[in-house]
Amino acid sequence: MERKIKIGLIGLGTVGSGVFKTLKNFDNVEVVKIAVKNINKPRNIEGLDNSILTDNPYEIVENPEIDIVAELIGGIDPAFDLIKKAIENGKHIVTANKELLAKQGEELFNFAEQHNKVILYEAAIAGGIPLIMPVKTILAGNKINKIEAILNGTTNYILTKMDMQGASYDDVLKEAQELGYAESNPTGDVEGFDAAYKIATLATITFRKRIRIENIYREGITKIRPEDMKAANDLGYKIKLIASGKIDDEGNADVRVHPMLVSQKTALAHIDYVTNAVHLSGHPVGEVTLSGPGAGEFPTASSVVGDILNISAEIGKSDYILPMMRCRHDEYANMIDISETKNKYYLSINAHNNIGVIGKIGTICAENNISLASIVQKCVSDDNTADITVITEIASESAMQNAIKLIEQDGSKVNSLIRVQV
Amino acid sequence: MERKIKIGLIGLGTVGSGVFKTLKNFDNVEVVKIAVKNINKPRNIEGLDNSILTDNPYEIVENPEIDIVAELIGGIDPAFDLIKKAIENGKHIVTANKELLAKQGEELFNFAEQHNKVILYEAAIAGGIPLIMPVKTILAGNKINKIEAILNGTTNYILTKMDMQGASYDDVLKEAQELGYAESNPTGDVEGFDAAYKIATLATITFRKRIRIENIYREGITKIRPEDMKAANDLGYKIKLIASGKIDDEGNADVRVHPMLVSQKTALAHIDYVTNAVHLSGHPVGEVTLSGPGAGEFPTASSVVGDILNISAEIGKSDYILPMMRCRHDEYANMIDISETKNKYYLSINAHNNIGVIGKIGTICAENNISLASIVQKCVSDDNTADITVITEIASESAMQNAIKLIEQDGSKVNSLIRVQV
Repeated sequence: MERKIKIGLIGLGTVGSGVFKTLKNFDNVEVVKIAVKNINKPRNIEGLDNSILTDNPYEIVENPEIDIVAELIGGIDPAFDLIKKAIENGKHIVTANKELLAKQGEELFNFAEQHNKVILYEAAIAGGIPLIMPVKTILAGNKINKIEAILNGTTNYILTKMDMQGASYDDVLKEAQELGYAESNPTGDVEGFDAAYKIATLATITFRKRIRIENIYREGITKIRPEDMKAANDLGYKIKLIASGKIDDEGNADVRVHPMLVSQKTALAHIDYVTNAVHLSGHPVGEVTLSGPGAGEFPTASSVVGDILNISAEIGKSDYILPMMRCRHDEYANMIDISETKNKYYLSINAHNNIGVIGKIGTICAENNISLASIVQKCVSDDNTADITVITEIASESAMQNAIKLIEQDGSKVNSLIRVQV
Repeated sequence: MERKIKIGLIGLGTVGSGVFKTLKNFDNVEVVKIAVKNINKPRNIEGLDNSILTDNPYEIVENPEIDIVAELIGGIDPAFDLIKKAIENGKHIVTANKELLAKQGEELFNFAEQHNKVILYEAAIAGGIPLIMPVKTILAGNKINKIEAILNGTTNYILTKMDMQGASYDDVLKEAQELGYAESNPTGDVEGFDAAYKIATLATITFRKRIRIENIYREGITKIRPEDMKAANDLGYKIKLIASGKIDDEGNADVRVHPMLVSQKTALAHIDYVTNAVHLSGHPVGEVTLSGPGAGEFPTASSVVGDILNISAEIGKSDYILPMMRCRHDEYANMIDISETKNKYYLSINAHNNIGVIGKIGTICAENNISLASIVQKCVSDDNTADITVITEIASESAMQNAIKLIEQDGSKVNSLIRVQV
């Protein structure tokens, strides 16, 4: 009989509780200490012995008995310091902290490597979906050059509801807040920060080049209108907040988060409500799509516990454990700025309804080397204006931005510009 | 610099070629010997030195220099003997051989364990989809109790084409054979043997109980009619060949392969052509769906190479490698026979068009404790018969079979019985 691996948990909120309850099913691991904010808070967790609670997380990272520390509090401070101390003290780390990995991942992974410790973080990206470990292990023979993913449940819930109910962003946000699917300050989700943190780390390990969070173009969903949802449907698309990454053979990477018109023929278009999904393209595998719950007590616990069990199985077997799971990327990707990218575009334009307006838009686009895939004058409103929906062929972002300026100078209003999946 | 891990390939057909080409990209592994049927066959494989070819596969399994043998020839004989010899000679095994695993897996895994060697087989089930390694590693904290999967590309191609073109099974099979998607003798695919081999092994590792291939209920797609496709669509379903498994808390397992009406609201309904997909339900993860290419030179190579790289990374680090990836299931599942299961059913009945017929069918079902969800008399043909489509609520298989007997004794013909996803 091998010895039990000793686990310390930092955090006993939603995720921590799920992890504690799940770990109880396994004989080879034992949670010996849990750091909480308020030690006296009543908790209804079966099998929890209050004597293992502490309100000082340093009692965990400095505890010589503990083999693995699971950091489940989120944020930078004090998580960053706690993880470094834990590594210094010889512990392996499991974390669900996407913000910390995106902002300080490089330092933490280098530090862990110097101390021959691993940091696993399956739960930090796409919750319960098996993603990070598969990318690092069974897909290791691949050169993956494209990621398209739905990584934020809140925004996907809002977009799904807007699509199904024809409702406005504001109304659906309010409903989502009442149901607990969106926070009272929803900025982190709806402006795409959360998805950007996740794609930063996911692209880094998938492309095997470091991606800096500050180089990720980010646009949220707050400007999406019910009219855009309707138009997208009519054209065979759905609007999703897509976290995407591409890398070319020279190592130039284009990583972003923004709303996207996604073809209804693709799996991502049918990922609804809080479900997450990740579509990977590469060679030799071709295309795979992984989908499942992106958050929640138990799905997140599945990933945290998976990481813990995998580290536990290796401890004592060898000094240098889990070689495939380590993160060592010396090089940074050369990042392509959004202004230098090429995209397909959906435009919704409100124009004075005069005979020449479609011709004018067509001419402005042509003069900027933008070919049009379709242009539809949808309806004439009471105020004698027309709504014109344009889908372009692939065009340069700078040309598109210039064309928009010219269209608006001409007196029309560009209500929406949303990029289209290619 | 660590030494290169030496690889021997048995088989250089489609899969073997893809593996060879992919492994060339990796410095830490080297293919030192390849067994082929015909050593003189002209091959157009870049970087292949013909001097490493042999027509005697025992030169590989007995070669003391080789660390890992990849068996890529399929079938039982001589693959079984070659793998045993290779294990005896201290080699780890990677295989894509679903039939061998389903029929002789237990003996091989036990033999490997006795010799402290691993057998990995990601490519044997669902081709390039990351499935086996994720189930064994990052999902290890889960109790997965349900699998629904599309594991055979040929049948999914045929069903997709039948659905889209309204064509007959025979016509689409012929077309699929001409295009190379179906073999000249298609029995292994269309009668569900291939899917049964795969679900036998997948259910074994997912449920952590051995599933015997001979206990898997199996039904193919040859009797599916265009009329069934049409009726399924009208009712909000698609017909797919589903390999499924369920296990209850007492370890009673129900594993089968048969056509199934799958709700169009689920991801599996939208998995088309040769794509494969696996839907897993369990706790704590909830539900995840993994989809991608189920076969082909490069997707299969992705999985074989993934297995090879993961074993390679561990060799020399420790004597007991990849503890999470080993297969040791001492217990057999208690298998539930199809006659003891409960299901929802789709029935297509051709009846003499007399006034009492719907009432008669309803009465027979009621007398057998079968509740009906819907019953539709679709059309009356020239021969004065009616086509009646029935969807039942959940009912016992034996009651359903009895009802069919009674309906047919009454003079109607049951053209199709297809189980419905619940």
